[in-house]
Amino acid sequence: MFLPEEAVTLGGLPAGGVPLAGFGSFYAGGRQVRIEGRPIAQIQFTPTVDFDWDPNGLFHIEQAYVQWFMPADRRHDLPIVLLHGGGFTGTMWEATPDGRPGWLQDFLGAGYPVYVVDNVERGRAGWCPFTEFWPGPPILRSAEEAWSLFRVGAAADFAMRRPFAAQRFPTAAFDDLIRGSVPRFPRQTDDAAVAALGAVFDRIGRSVALVAHSQGGEIALRAALASPERIAALVLVESSGFPAAGTAAGWPVLQVVGDHLDATPLWIDLARRYRTFAADLTRQGVRNDAWFLAERGIIGNSHMPMMDDNSTDIAAEIAVWLAGVRS
Amino acid sequence: MFLPEEAVTLGGLPAGGVPLAGFGSFYAGGRQVRIEGRPIAQIQFTPTVDFDWDPNGLFHIEQAYVQWFMPADRRHDLPIVLLHGGGFTGTMWEATPDGRPGWLQDFLGAGYPVYVVDNVERGRAGWCPFTEFWPGPPILRSAEEAWSLFRVGAAADFAMRRPFAAQRFPTAAFDDLIRGSVPRFPRQTDDAAVAALGAVFDRIGRSVALVAHSQGGEIALRAALASPERIAALVLVESSGFPAAGTAAGWPVLQVVGDHLDATPLWIDLARRYRTFAADLTRQGVRNDAWFLAERGIIGNSHMPMMDDNSTDIAAEIAVWLAGVRS
Repeated sequence: MFLPEEAVTLGGLPAGGVPLAGFGSFYAGGRQVRIEGRPIAQIQFTPTVDFDWDPNGLFHIEQAYVQWFMPADRRHDLPIVLLHGGGFTGTMWEATPDGRPGWLQDFLGAGYPVYVVDNVERGRAGWCPFTEFWPGPPILRSAEEAWSLFRVGAAADFAMRRPFAAQRFPTAAFDDLIRGSVPRFPRQTDDAAVAALGAVFDRIGRSVALVAHSQGGEIALRAALASPERIAALVLVESSGFPAAGTAAGWPVLQVVGDHLDATPLWIDLARRYRTFAADLTRQGVRNDAWFLAERGIIGNSHMPMMDDNSTDIAAEIAVWLAGVRS
Repeated sequence: MFLPEEAVTLGGLPAGGVPLAGFGSFYAGGRQVRIEGRPIAQIQFTPTVDFDWDPNGLFHIEQAYVQWFMPADRRHDLPIVLLHGGGFTGTMWEATPDGRPGWLQDFLGAGYPVYVVDNVERGRAGWCPFTEFWPGPPILRSAEEAWSLFRVGAAADFAMRRPFAAQRFPTAAFDDLIRGSVPRFPRQTDDAAVAALGAVFDRIGRSVALVAHSQGGEIALRAALASPERIAALVLVESSGFPAAGTAAGWPVLQVVGDHLDATPLWIDLARRYRTFAADLTRQGVRNDAWFLAERGIIGNSHMPMMDDNSTDIAAEIAVWLAGVRS
C-alpha cells in the first residue's frame, strides 16, 4: 500500500508515487430538471438539525466528473482519457485491490497527461434518485458475479476462492474488489453517459486517446462516433460489445483481451465478436491491433488486466502502442 | 478553469497546479453482507449483453474512499484529513464552482500532506441499494435549498439569483454547485459514517488534523471522540451541530464561521451553539478558537468558505493556525 505514512516513515517519496506538475477536477455535461408538486416533509438532517425539507426545485443530473493529472515529466502531448466499466468508478484505474499503483499511475509515469472519468451515475458524478428520470431499480455487483464474469475462476469455485490454475488477478485481495463497486441503472443511463462523455471531450478541447473498459467500451465507441474529431486513438480493454451502427471513423484501434475466453458462453461469444470487429476494421483499412494476450504468450489475465499482477507491463505496452500511432 | 489544455497551450504548468511527489487512494472500513432468496432476473446489461442476473450474494457496503496527495515541497509532517458536508463528496475541496483551486490545493501548497475522504454513501465510496440495510428514501439537495441553507441569499431572491449585498460566494456559478451534489440517506448512515472514518484514521496510522464541514462536523466529532489518540487538531467549518455526549478530548479546536448568521432561525440557533461550544471548551481548559469571520472584519462569507472568493486566504489562515498548535 503506497501511503504517505510510509513516505514519512521512510523519509522519501511515497512508494509508487509519480511526481506531478499538478492536478484538478471539473464537471461536464448533464442537464437541469425541475421537481414539482411533492409534499414538504419534516426530516432530521442530522442528530441535531430538524428541517422542513422541500423535495421540489431545480436539480442538475447526468453530469460526468473528471479528475486530471499532469506528470512532472511530461513526454507526450496526447492526453489519455480513462473510462471505467460497468459498476465501477475512476478508482478502478488508481490502485489495484492488493494496493499496487494502477494504470493511471503507469500512464503518468510514461509521461502522458491523464483524465479519469466518473461517468453518469458513478462515483463523484452522483446519481439521480428521481424515478421519473431514472426508474430503477439499480443493481449492485456481487462478489460471486465478479468472480465468474471477470473470469477469475469457475462459479462453483467461488466459495473456496479457488481461481483458474493460471490466474493473474490478485485473488487474495478478491473481496476488496467489490468495495469499489457502485450501483448502476442498466441501460437507463446509457444515452446520458454517451452525452456526458461527449461534453467531457468538448471541455478537454483537443483530441485524446480514449481507453475504455468493458461496458465503458460501448459507451466510448458511441461517444467517439458522435465526436470523431475528438479522438486520436481508441483502446478497448475487454469491451462488453460494439454498437450496431458504425464501428469506426478511421482512428487507430487497439483491443486488449485476457485469457480464459472459454470460461462462459458470454465470453465465447465476445471473443468471436472481438475478432469480427478487428476484421471489419482491417477490411475498412483502419489501422488496428487485437492483442489476445494468451496468444502472445501472456497467460492467465482476467477481465481486469489493469488489476492483474502484470498490469504495469500491459500499461507499458499500451503506452508504446499509443506513441506509435502518433508517428 | 485550470485544465491541462491550457498548460499545453501555454507550454507550462497548469494554472493553479501544485507540484506533487505522488498521490494514491484506498478504501477503508465497511462490512460484508449477504443477500439471499431474491429471484434471478433476465436483464440487459448493455445494448449487446443479455444476462441472467442473480441479485443474491456477497457485497461490501459502508466503506469510505480516501484519496491522498503528497506535496513535492512538504514542509509539515502533520497530515490534514478533509471531510465533506452533507450531500457532497471530496470534490467540494478540489475546485470552486467557478473553477478556482480548492482548499485541497491550498493546503498542499502550504506544504501539508492531505487525505480527502468520500465517506459512506458519497461519491466513490458507493452506496447501498438494499432497503433492508438502508431503507431510504434518499434525498438530493435542490439549488433552492442550497441557496437559502448556505446563506447565499434570501429564499425569495433565488429566482432572480440576487444574493445578499455582501456575498463572497461565486454567485454567477451558483447553478454549477449542485452538479457536485449527491444523494444522501439522512441519519440512516450516520453510525456507518462514524465507523468508516475511524477505519480511515486506523489506516493512516498517525495523528491527523481533521477539517470537517457542516454535517461532516458532527460525524468528525463522534469519530474523533471514539479515537481520541488519532487526532492532533480539529477544525470545524460551519458544523451542523455537536454530539450530545462529550465535546472534546483535549485536542485544539478551531471553529470557522461565515457571515449572515441572522439569515434563518436555523443559523441563529447554530451561531448560539458555536459560542456555547467554544465557551465549554474554554471552561474545560481546551485550547480553542472560534473565528466568526464577520467579527474579524471579513464580511460576506457564506456557509461554503472553501468556495467563496477569499477561500485561499482563509485556507492560509487555517494552515498558520495548524502550524501554531503543533508548537
